[in-house]
Amino acid sequence: MKTIGIGLLGFGTVGAGVVEGLQRQDATLAARLGLGFALRRIADLDLERDRGVAVDRSLLTRDAAAVVNDPAVDVVVELIGGCGAAQQLILQALALGKPVVTANKALLAAHGAEIFQAAEARQTPVYFEASVGGGIPIIKALREGLVANNIRSIYGILNGTCNYILTRMEQEQAPFDAALRAAQAAGYAEAEPSLDIDGHDTAHKAVILAALAYGCPVPLSAASVEGIRGLAMEDLGNALEMGYRIKLLGIVKLGPAGVGVRVQPTLVPRAHLLAAVSGVFNAIQVDGDLAGQTLYYGRGAGRTATASAVLSDLADVARDLAAGQRRMAPVHAAAGRTLQLQPADDIAVRCYLRLTLLDKPGMLARVAQVLGKHGISIASVMQKEARAGQHVPVVIVTHQAAEHQFRSALALIDRMEIIGAPTVRLRIEDFE
Amino acid sequence: MKTIGIGLLGFGTVGAGVVEGLQRQDATLAARLGLGFALRRIADLDLERDRGVAVDRSLLTRDAAAVVNDPAVDVVVELIGGCGAAQQLILQALALGKPVVTANKALLAAHGAEIFQAAEARQTPVYFEASVGGGIPIIKALREGLVANNIRSIYGILNGTCNYILTRMEQEQAPFDAALRAAQAAGYAEAEPSLDIDGHDTAHKAVILAALAYGCPVPLSAASVEGIRGLAMEDLGNALEMGYRIKLLGIVKLGPAGVGVRVQPTLVPRAHLLAAVSGVFNAIQVDGDLAGQTLYYGRGAGRTATASAVLSDLADVARDLAAGQRRMAPVHAAAGRTLQLQPADDIAVRCYLRLTLLDKPGMLARVAQVLGKHGISIASVMQKEARAGQHVPVVIVTHQAAEHQFRSALALIDRMEIIGAPTVRLRIEDFE
Repeated sequence: MKTIGIGLLGFGTVGAGVVEGLQRQDATLAARLGLGFALRRIADLDLERDRGVAVDRSLLTRDAAAVVNDPAVDVVVELIGGCGAAQQLILQALALGKPVVTANKALLAAHGAEIFQAAEARQTPVYFEASVGGGIPIIKALREGLVANNIRSIYGILNGTCNYILTRMEQEQAPFDAALRAAQAAGYAEAEPSLDIDGHDTAHKAVILAALAYGCPVPLSAASVEGIRGLAMEDLGNALEMGYRIKLLGIVKLGPAGVGVRVQPTLVPRAHLLAAVSGVFNAIQVDGDLAGQTLYYGRGAGRTATASAVLSDLADVARDLAAGQRRMAPVHAAAGRTLQLQPADDIAVRCYLRLTLLDKPGMLARVAQVLGKHGISIASVMQKEARAGQHVPVVIVTHQAAEHQFRSALALIDRMEIIGAPTVRLRIEDFE
Repeated sequence: MKTIGIGLLGFGTVGAGVVEGLQRQDATLAARLGLGFALRRIADLDLERDRGVAVDRSLLTRDAAAVVNDPAVDVVVELIGGCGAAQQLILQALALGKPVVTANKALLAAHGAEIFQAAEARQTPVYFEASVGGGIPIIKALREGLVANNIRSIYGILNGTCNYILTRMEQEQAPFDAALRAAQAAGYAEAEPSLDIDGHDTAHKAVILAALAYGCPVPLSAASVEGIRGLAMEDLGNALEMGYRIKLLGIVKLGPAGVGVRVQPTLVPRAHLLAAVSGVFNAIQVDGDLAGQTLYYGRGAGRTATASAVLSDLADVARDLAAGQRRMAPVHAAAGRTLQLQPADDIAVRCYLRLTLLDKPGMLARVAQVLGKHGISIASVMQKEARAGQHVPVVIVTHQAAEHQFRSALALIDRMEIIGAPTVRLRIEDFE
């Protein structure tokens, strides 16, 4: 039976999961693929820490480049993360004609164009199932399962940390800060949580999906990004009352003016499947012109789920190598082609506006007038009973208007003396 | 650019969708795959009917075998359906070393073992994405995306007709017969609907998924099958009141005693994603030992969705052919290995029982005594207010017990003089 030699770069949580998976599923993989895997070398800066998985210490080294160069290594698994050493090591592997499997979403989002170009030049594949959606085979679904579809839209809950925080806020009536601390205590959020809660991680994944869907590099700067930091319980409650849940969505949508990529806390109708995705789970809805809407759900992170995705990529590499085939179709179909991107300012959205309005007659009319002048029409208004104090919260749900119209209108409204605090604006998605 | 010649067998709804898809997505597929498709010949008994898609009449023939034999045909797409001519034509194609793409679930469920054996013997692949879940790439997810997972369970809403009927019953308060007629009027159900509503179509798909998950042939006779024919509004209403929706599920579950395969109308907790799947949509939840729970959702049937799956298979075939590779890993990993199947009688289930009980004191105790003697303990009882007449409906929710215990107990109970009508029994799934 043919054996594929693996060089592993990065022996952290996911790396240990991959090693454990290779050991545990040895027989399963051999039966299903008709070939075996052998872990040749493992590079990590820390050679001492116990990862909870037994490996021959002689496999361990601090020299990642030596692992890539080792002639016994047929495929390089990059789990170091980040945009430093990881990028050089991947390019080094490709230069040697060694296929690469990576979970590095930050790198692919920032430097995917160079990496896929190098892969194309060397006719050597880069697989990246683990970069988006953890154990959900979304890359394979998009790249192969929906290969005959022109993609109209992608809506994804792509960050388990944020979804955990939102679920906890809703279910436990916990304010944002308490929910974040709970996520940190549970190991779902980092001590420095901004990559997750400010939406950057979701943006990385949205950009990777957009690049794959449209076969073109998509610069990270093309995505307009808002996170969930400081989201108020009051807005979650209002949303629920109106029949919505708030989810942090990565959205890729093809319109007449091009492809828009954005990350936003979004009001999702409660009857929609995405609204039913709770805790650390992820889900991605893809709309294709033939298949229509399909949705993919599962664990977005974690040791074994991510290992499942890495092992699936290794199986694809192994099938290629066993057949003497060195590559699959390029990720970016038309080299040099650039995608027409829709400027974030032009994207049309419906909004939820929570104004803090002076509690006197005629105030709402003044706000409505400014909105109207900016082409924003009102679908409904909800005014809660007055609390102690001069101001009352007023929730306005609008019809569609462009982002820039909302921004201009709110810049004026928030300067009016009748407004007691900056207006909260959230998008509403109707999935039409 | 290399061109793959296609021979199409069966020019019905899906066949026309495939032809339309090939025409419409010609440029997309060429860009993504680096090769082209050419439709060489189309076989159908009816050469006259307008399929709403333009094809050169010279491609049409009544002679399906000639299409398979045509040297210009590199791959055979079988969309005839059924277990007659389709099987012979597929075997003929494999004998010629021509890869096959099929949507034929009935054939694969009944004769998959022979077909996959022939494929293995000729080292020629059979692809069947369109046989389960329409446009959902579930076969690819299970076979490739989750390749490193041992599968613990699969729960699927696999028949859009039944799900449409159930959704309509619930949303429109329509009794079963009216909902079936509505499904027929909408083109979702056949004039002779038993294949769908009696659960057979779901069983075909469950057996295909089980065979794929465990790498062994699974005989159709292994599945215990109940459909939704005659399901009462009363039970849907009771289920809703108790926090459940009724869905027809295909269930494949690995237990200590083997793999159980069954099709049953099932009470699904309303918070579960499967409960939120409405109308003609399908969804499949797969539990793998590494990935954990993943779920796949989309259109289970229809011209373009099914075509999307067929074209995805054609893309896989094309990649193989372009690389000079003729096969992928076998569907049934260990030739000759047989799967240990759990007898349906031994499967442990929780049940919903609706008894029609004489309205006198002490009657429930008599029923409870019989249940207890058969090892069935009661979790809760719901008795509606008495109606006119001697009998009242009493709903009992049980804890887990084996199927045969329920059958024995109800055989006795339904013979008691205090019972006014046969007891309705439905399974409750907690997905644990």
